[in-house]
Amino acid sequence: MAGAAGLIIGNEVLTAKVRERNGALLIERLRARGIPLVGLFVVPDDVDAIVEVFLLARRRSRYLFTSGGIGPTHDDVTVRAIALGLQRPVVRVPEIVRSLTEAFKGKPVPPEALRLADAPAGSRLIHGPRLQYPALACDDVYLLPGVPELFEAQLETVLDGLSGQPVVTRLVFLDAHEHEIAPVLDAAALEVPEVEIGSYPTFDPAAGYRVKVTVEHVERARVDAMVDRLVRELPASAVLRVE
Amino acid sequence: MAGAAGLIIGNEVLTAKVRERNGALLIERLRARGIPLVGLFVVPDDVDAIVEVFLLARRRSRYLFTSGGIGPTHDDVTVRAIALGLQRPVVRVPEIVRSLTEAFKGKPVPPEALRLADAPAGSRLIHGPRLQYPALACDDVYLLPGVPELFEAQLETVLDGLSGQPVVTRLVFLDAHEHEIAPVLDAAALEVPEVEIGSYPTFDPAAGYRVKVTVEHVERARVDAMVDRLVRELPASAVLRVE
Repeated sequence: MAGAAGLIIGNEVLTAKVRERNGALLIERLRARGIPLVGLFVVPDDVDAIVEVFLLARRRSRYLFTSGGIGPTHDDVTVRAIALGLQRPVVRVPEIVRSLTEAFKGKPVPPEALRLADAPAGSRLIHGPRLQYPALACDDVYLLPGVPELFEAQLETVLDGLSGQPVVTRLVFLDAHEHEIAPVLDAAALEVPEVEIGSYPTFDPAAGYRVKVTVEHVERARVDAMVDRLVRELPASAVLRVE
Repeated sequence: MAGAAGLIIGNEVLTAKVRERNGALLIERLRARGIPLVGLFVVPDDVDAIVEVFLLARRRSRYLFTSGGIGPTHDDVTVRAIALGLQRPVVRVPEIVRSLTEAFKGKPVPPEALRLADAPAGSRLIHGPRLQYPALACDDVYLLPGVPELFEAQLETVLDGLSGQPVVTRLVFLDAHEHEIAPVLDAAALEVPEVEIGSYPTFDPAAGYRVKVTVEHVERARVDAMVDRLVRELPASAVLRVE
């Protein structure tokens, strides 16, 4: 199990106060790195809701990326929820306490700011040249900030340390209704389940096609073989072009 | 339990083939109608994954909106998955069969096209003046198409039949670090939990503030009372403006 899941945490997203961008970024960056994304979940600032979705995501993926809820206020509950989900206690991380102490230049660090130093026991900090603050990781869970600039910088740094296999995608554009091509696609998908076949109709006359079929696998030869098969088996008049 | 959840179904979303728009639209339209959104979940075209997330969402919300996976090809598994989740068999809906028969003008309807007539037993069709195809509903689950134009039209028609209570939101813009305002927000959130308080820092110097606090409730008087309380208890020098 090598895939990843994303957990976007924040009432502000579900109540339309902000247009969420971190989820789309996560999708794109994981894709570019060849790490399959098995699910993306947007949940409120609620410990129970986060834990429940965390446990579900955890059963389906190795890596988990969270966005948001790691600040110092009452609505920042991500650390507590993820710690519960991992069955680890929350502890204060000495390295973050030292950074805070330096930031406050010798004045006592207020208890609310010290919450920024809380993490699931066993967490590690990931540093990077582009990072103002290190990223927090525990058991393949990466707890990233919701602020988009910080999320992006920390995500890139984390991904530098992971490896995946980029997927090869080819496209077949068709002038046909989906039901006309379904028998061919069904049979191919059933016989060669490891090559991913997608079928996407458009209702936009300006698109220049009616259905776009995608064929994907990490090995180019297998993608090419499937594209050849589909072109051979689909009605010749339906195939507009292959990319 | 009156809230809603969204289930965006499709490998194409999780593999960055399309930029998903229906989720953002669902967030905005539910907000405008005053129906709380408890979660938004993006899952692949996989029956097990859909059923699992469906059951989770169902425990937390009354209404469920799905997007995608209701076409005639092998990767369209939404109807089957939702029927499993609802513990209802899949049946062929006579009204849709009639529409398909008309569309094929007397020629036999191919079996793949007939899949468009499949639905969980007990489903009903929702018609509307703006709708080319009716929306499919079963037990407060609305199975909407992934094609954005169709999704939007069907969503609006469905929402016309539901009712919510629009939420009043006010904003307090602050020049302060989150940890400086956390004690006041914590105490207020703890004492008046039914009024929703959010705290959103920005790291963008051009924003003109450092933290935006949101205060929300369906009753304006309760929102006003909380805003007054926060302005009174927060450091006067920190309050930039109130909206």
